[in-house]
Amino acid sequence: MTDDRHLVETATSRTELLRGHFLHAVRETVRLPDGGSAVREFILHPGAVMMIALLDDGRVVLERQYRHAVGQVMVEFPAGKLDPGEAVQTCAERELREETGYVAREWARAGRLHPCIGYSNEFIDVWFARGLSLGERRLDDGEFLDVISATPAELLAWCRDGRITDAKTLTGALWLQNVLSAAWKLDWQAQSGQP
Amino acid sequence: MTDDRHLVETATSRTELLRGHFLHAVRETVRLPDGGSAVREFILHPGAVMMIALLDDGRVVLERQYRHAVGQVMVEFPAGKLDPGEAVQTCAERELREETGYVAREWARAGRLHPCIGYSNEFIDVWFARGLSLGERRLDDGEFLDVISATPAELLAWCRDGRITDAKTLTGALWLQNVLSAAWKLDWQAQSGQP
Repeated sequence: MTDDRHLVETATSRTELLRGHFLHAVRETVRLPDGGSAVREFILHPGAVMMIALLDDGRVVLERQYRHAVGQVMVEFPAGKLDPGEAVQTCAERELREETGYVAREWARAGRLHPCIGYSNEFIDVWFARGLSLGERRLDDGEFLDVISATPAELLAWCRDGRITDAKTLTGALWLQNVLSAAWKLDWQAQSGQP
Repeated sequence: MTDDRHLVETATSRTELLRGHFLHAVRETVRLPDGGSAVREFILHPGAVMMIALLDDGRVVLERQYRHAVGQVMVEFPAGKLDPGEAVQTCAERELREETGYVAREWARAGRLHPCIGYSNEFIDVWFARGLSLGERRLDDGEFLDVISATPAELLAWCRDGRITDAKTLTGALWLQNVLSAAWKLDWQAQSGQP
């Protein structure tokens, strides 16, 4: 798997396609492995973090939020975008507090996912949190969401029956199932406590 | 969970933002639950299908493909976009055959995922396939990929250690793990055999 020259493309030029209020898209011309050329278009994204927050009674913290792009209220693990220059754990602590009100005593980085490799450079870092205490949430303007909780068994049933279709949350369910069965280990650390 | 009026947004206008070679983006103005207004921008996508193809020896079919948006060779379950008007199972059979060469005797629809609910309406239907026989693959122009196989244990180890970060494939691993443990049942049907 080390020599990937027969697969790798190399960008030869980039043009900006779109700078919206939210979306930033570029087009790149690439040299293909066979020497030909092709055009790739994709979204530039700052990256994000998702939090699997474990309550002391074994339930997990979820959100219900209307997602306009898919026209549905979605059940999701809390998540949020990195601010410029922000450390990932700091972002995780901030977004969990802002969206749900919860502060966690301990954190563990699980892994990374790429939601949309066909046309976005977005990554989402997956973190677990435990030792939760409830403070006050502080939503952004124009952000409306319900905070709910579910047992892991309920969450997995919803992944099975189609009530959960958000890919980051389905990925979180894979992590949760394997962490709870002790097949996958986490390395827990104290909160960073950055503001 | 039935009354979601405090969450739902309603579009009041749409403008086209971008019609690239590949990306199609729109901006919509929405009425918020509190009567305010906001702007949402997202990608319009025709939908796609992903195939979890089970070989007779218990291994699964995977691809290694360079994904320019993330600048990496990714390990993925085979997947492809719906052609206009194409039935999802027909697309699954076509894409599996074109990308990997495999034809499957039996198919089962597992569920649906949404890769990127923040800024795309894309859905990916998840299908299992078994009873595989190898024919000839036929890649699109400018498509370069390796077909590999892995045991479910290898696949799950790669999800754990970060070798697999593609969210659709991580979601497929959740399905595979629960189907193999018999926690989640599938309803197998004969191939449609559409061309």
